[in-house]
Order: sequence, then C-alpha cells, then structure tokens
Amino acid sequence: MKARIYVFLKPKVLDPQGKAIEKALSTLGFEEVKSVRAGKFFEVETGDVPPGKEEETLREYCRKLLVNAVIEDYRIEVIEK
Amino acid sequence: MKARIYVFLKPKVLDPQGKAIEKALSTLGFEEVKSVRAGKFFEVETGDVPPGKEEETLREYCRKLLVNAVIEDYRIEVIEK
Repeated sequence: MKARIYVFLKPKVLDPQGKAIEKALSTLGFEEVKSVRAGKFFEVETGDVPPGKEEETLREYCRKLLVNAVIEDYRIEVIEK
Repeated sequence: MKARIYVFLKPKVLDPQGKAIEKALSTLGFEEVKSVRAGKFFEVETGDVPPGKEEETLREYCRKLLVNAVIEDYRIEVIEK
C-alpha cells in the first residue's frame, strides 16, 4: 500500500511556525498574505495489508505514533492499495 | 485565495525523520511498513491576487522563503481563487 497521512494542528491551537512564516512573507513584500498554518505529512509505503483494512491500519499508525490527539488532527489518503 | 503548498525532500536526499518513524513503527509491531518519508505543508490564505497570477504568487513564496531548492521540491494546490 502507498498512502499519505496529513497531520495538522487543531484550528484553535496556536501555530508559531505558521505565524513566523506569515510575518516573514509580509516582510518580504507579500502584503496580501493573511494567514499561514503549518502542518506535516508522511508518505508511507507498506507491504501487503489485509484488503479493506488500509484505512484502519493507517489510523493505527496515527494513534500510536504520528499524531498527538490533544492538539492535532489528521487526514489519510490511500494512493495505491 | 486559499491554497496549500506541499514541501518535501528530493527523492535522493536522506530523510532522518522519516527513517526514525519507519523504525519506530516497526518497533511498535507494524512490520509491514517499508518506508516513510516526511514532508511539510502550509495552508495559505491571502487577500486578492491578480486573476491568473495565483500559481505564480505561490511559486514566489516558495522560491523566496518556503523551499530550499537544493534539497527540496514542492507542489502547490489552489483551493479557492
């Protein structure tokens, strides 16, 4: 399976990296920039996963390791089963 | 305009974060995991951008600030003009 997992801060959580980029872009003359939020993503390649269990498997990776559920949300995208 | 910018390491560049996650998932019992590559993304919201210049504007953000062209590539996605 090939998949992508997107992890991002929940909307109400302060994002200092995004804020810094916002200001830096402004300073560089891009005054149209209103807001920037930063997130991360992971491209995952696995061997065979039981058919129909792709999303469940990826959710397990998120719960056990990739996502801090207190402050982060995630979205998964299966590219190739 | 609303847009997303995805920034990722070029395929031949070593990705220590991805490698660490790969090993951690294995250690947690997810032995099907073959490879993990880590990247980042930015959700950008701007005021009005001249029509037709959306992609060009985002490319400028990348070139001037967000992307290190020596080791990184990027992909842009305009969500709302």
